[in-house]
Amino acid sequence: MNDLSKIKNIIVKNPLKLDCGKEISNFPLAYETYGKLNEKKDNAILVFHALSGDQYASGINPVTNKEGWWNCAIGPGKSLDTDKFFVICANVIGGCMGSYGPSTIDPNTNKSIGTNFPVITINDMVNAQYNLLDFFKIEKLFAVTGGSMGGMQVLQFISNFPNKVQVAVPIACTASHSAQNIALNELGRQAIMADTNWKNGLYGENENNPDKGLAIARMAAHITYLSKVGLQEKFGRKLQEKDKLKFSFDADFQIESYLRHQGSVFVDRFDANSYLYITRAMDYFDLTKQFDGNLSKAFEKSKTKFFVISFTSDWLYPTSENRDIVIALNAIGADVGFVEIESDKGHDSFLLDVPDFLNTLKNYMDSTYSHLNEKRI
Amino acid sequence: MNDLSKIKNIIVKNPLKLDCGKEISNFPLAYETYGKLNEKKDNAILVFHALSGDQYASGINPVTNKEGWWNCAIGPGKSLDTDKFFVICANVIGGCMGSYGPSTIDPNTNKSIGTNFPVITINDMVNAQYNLLDFFKIEKLFAVTGGSMGGMQVLQFISNFPNKVQVAVPIACTASHSAQNIALNELGRQAIMADTNWKNGLYGENENNPDKGLAIARMAAHITYLSKVGLQEKFGRKLQEKDKLKFSFDADFQIESYLRHQGSVFVDRFDANSYLYITRAMDYFDLTKQFDGNLSKAFEKSKTKFFVISFTSDWLYPTSENRDIVIALNAIGADVGFVEIESDKGHDSFLLDVPDFLNTLKNYMDSTYSHLNEKRI
Repeated sequence: MNDLSKIKNIIVKNPLKLDCGKEISNFPLAYETYGKLNEKKDNAILVFHALSGDQYASGINPVTNKEGWWNCAIGPGKSLDTDKFFVICANVIGGCMGSYGPSTIDPNTNKSIGTNFPVITINDMVNAQYNLLDFFKIEKLFAVTGGSMGGMQVLQFISNFPNKVQVAVPIACTASHSAQNIALNELGRQAIMADTNWKNGLYGENENNPDKGLAIARMAAHITYLSKVGLQEKFGRKLQEKDKLKFSFDADFQIESYLRHQGSVFVDRFDANSYLYITRAMDYFDLTKQFDGNLSKAFEKSKTKFFVISFTSDWLYPTSENRDIVIALNAIGADVGFVEIESDKGHDSFLLDVPDFLNTLKNYMDSTYSHLNEKRI
Repeated sequence: MNDLSKIKNIIVKNPLKLDCGKEISNFPLAYETYGKLNEKKDNAILVFHALSGDQYASGINPVTNKEGWWNCAIGPGKSLDTDKFFVICANVIGGCMGSYGPSTIDPNTNKSIGTNFPVITINDMVNAQYNLLDFFKIEKLFAVTGGSMGGMQVLQFISNFPNKVQVAVPIACTASHSAQNIALNELGRQAIMADTNWKNGLYGENENNPDKGLAIARMAAHITYLSKVGLQEKFGRKLQEKDKLKFSFDADFQIESYLRHQGSVFVDRFDANSYLYITRAMDYFDLTKQFDGNLSKAFEKSKTKFFVISFTSDWLYPTSENRDIVIALNAIGADVGFVEIESDKGHDSFLLDVPDFLNTLKNYMDSTYSHLNEKRI
C-alpha cells in the first residue's frame, strides 16, 4: 500500500464523539495545502474530496506520483486560483492516505485496525476536519467546496458550522443518498466482502489483500461515473484488435480493457476496508432526515452564500437532487445561485476538463472574493 | 444445480456451424409449450427468453417450482392467449436448463464441459431454435417475440429467416449492444472470474461453485433492470429495523437485503459459466454491423409485420435504441408499429404486471391474428 512517510498531518487531540457513539482522540488527520494564507487569513478554501480522493488535490501526489485529483481546478490562474487563495484539503477519516482509518496501524498489535475501526459518517468527517481551522488559526473560511461526497461534506459543514464560511459551493451531490446509490455502493461492498482475501476485514498489511474484490467495486463505480452517451462516444463497440472478435472471455472491446485497467490501478493506491467505510458514510448521509424532513432547517442559522452546480448527464447525482438543495435554500431566502452545466461526461464531469464548469467556478470564486473581501481594504 | 430429468428436449442432429467457426451437432435443445397447435398450424408463437430466463415462460417451472418468467403475459386470456395461440419457448444454447451449454455433462469425461464450450452468438442461438419449426412441422410462425436479449433474437430471427414469420414483436431491446451495456456485462463476468471457485470455468458439478461471484453479477444486473425513480419509490431509504442504523456492514437498508436476496436465490438456479457465455453473446450482438452499417438491409427480404415496444424508464435499452429499429424498418417501407409505454419500473417493465404493456401486447396479437388469419376461413 501507500508509503505514508511524506505526508503532513495534524494530530487531533480533542475527543471527537462519533455518530456511532464511540469517541476518538489523538488521531492523525492528513492534509495538504496549495497557495498561501494571507495576513488577514480571509482567503482560505477548504476542499473536500470524494470517495476515492485524498488530500492531494493538485500538483503531483508524492505517494502515487500521479496528478492530484482536481489538478484541472486548483493551481495558479485556475478555478481555485492559488495565486489568490489558500487551498486546504484533508484526507477524510476512514481514508487511507494518512488520516485515521482502517489501515492505520494499531501500536499495541502492530497490525492495521481493519474492521475494528468504528463506522463513521459524513458528519464525523467534517467534525474532524474542523480542527484544521484551529490549526491554521483561521476564524472564517472564504469557501468550502467539493463534488460528489465532497459536496455532501460542504452541506454538512455549513449545517454544523453556520458562521465559519463565506461561500459554499456543493457540486454534483445530494442532501440525501438515493436508493440507487445505496444499491450501487452495496454492490461494491459485497464484491469486496466476497473476496476470500478480505477475511472479515482483518487482512494484514503484508498478506494478500482483497484486490480482486476492490477492483470489481471500482469497475462498477467507474461505469456509474460516466454517461451512456459519453461511453458510446468514447468507446462505442471499438475492438482491441481491429475488426476481429476473439470468441473468448479476454477483453475484446476497448471498454472492457479500459475497465480492467481502472480496477487494477485502483488497488495499488486504495484500501478495501476504506472503500467499505467511506461508501457506508455516503449511504448514511441524509441531511434532510437530520432536520426531521425539512432540509431548509439545516441552513437557517447560516448567512453563507451558496452556489450549487450540477451536470446534465450526471445520473448518479442528477440535477433534480441538486435542485432540491437550491429549493431548500430558497425557502429560507438564502443567497443561492445555481447552474446546470451541459456535459456528456456524466458524474465525472466535476473532475474533468469541462471548460464551462471550470470557468463558471473560477468566475464565481474570483468575483465573489473580490466583492466580499477586497472592498474592505 | 438444476435437476434436468423433467425437461423436454429435441436433439438437433443437423450440424450447426457456429460464428466462431466450430460446428456442433447432436445436441439437446430444451423447450416447453403452452396452448395447442391448431390444424392449420398457423397459431404458433416462438418466444425468446432473456439473459437469465429459460423455456419455462409460463405456469410453474417444474425444476425451480417458481412461476415462469413471463407468467403475467402467457396463459388463457393473457397477452399471448393460450386459448388461441400455441406458445413455444426454448432454452438458448449456452443456457443451463437442459439445452447444450457449459453445464452439459461430457459423456467422455463425465464432467461438465465448462469453458470448453464454444463462444456462441445470438445468431447461433436462433439458428439452433429454428430446428423447432421442423420438429413441430410449422411452415410459418404466427409470431416471434421477446424482451431484452429475447428481442435481439427476434431481430436476428427475421433477418435469418425472412419468410418464416407473420409478426415480429421485439421488446425493450437494441440492434447493437451499447458500450454501457458491454461494460455492465463485463463487470458481471469479472465478478464471476474473480471468484476463486471459478477455476477458469472448470469447476466440477459437485465442487464448490463460484456462487459469490455469480451473486455479485446478479446484484449488479438487478440494479440496472430497475429505474432510479422506481428504486426510490419502492425502497427509498427505508431501513430494515425501523429507525435504527446499525453502524456496521450488515444490511441496514431494505434495498441492501433485497439485493443480497436476489443474488443468493439466483445461484440456486443458474450456472456461472452460462452467465459468461450468454452475456458474451449479447455483447457480440451488432445486427447493424452484420449488414455493413445499414440495419434496414437486415429486414429488406422480409414481409413480416413489426411492432416495436419500449419503456420510458428503461435506461439499459432506452427508447432511442428501440426507435433506431423502427427507423430502419421505415426506411424500407416495412409494416411497423411502435409504442413507448409509460412505466417507472425500468427495463424490468417487460417482465412485470404493467397493464398498459400487457394490454397493448394482447390487443396487437389478437387483432393481428384475427386480421391476418381468420379472414381466410
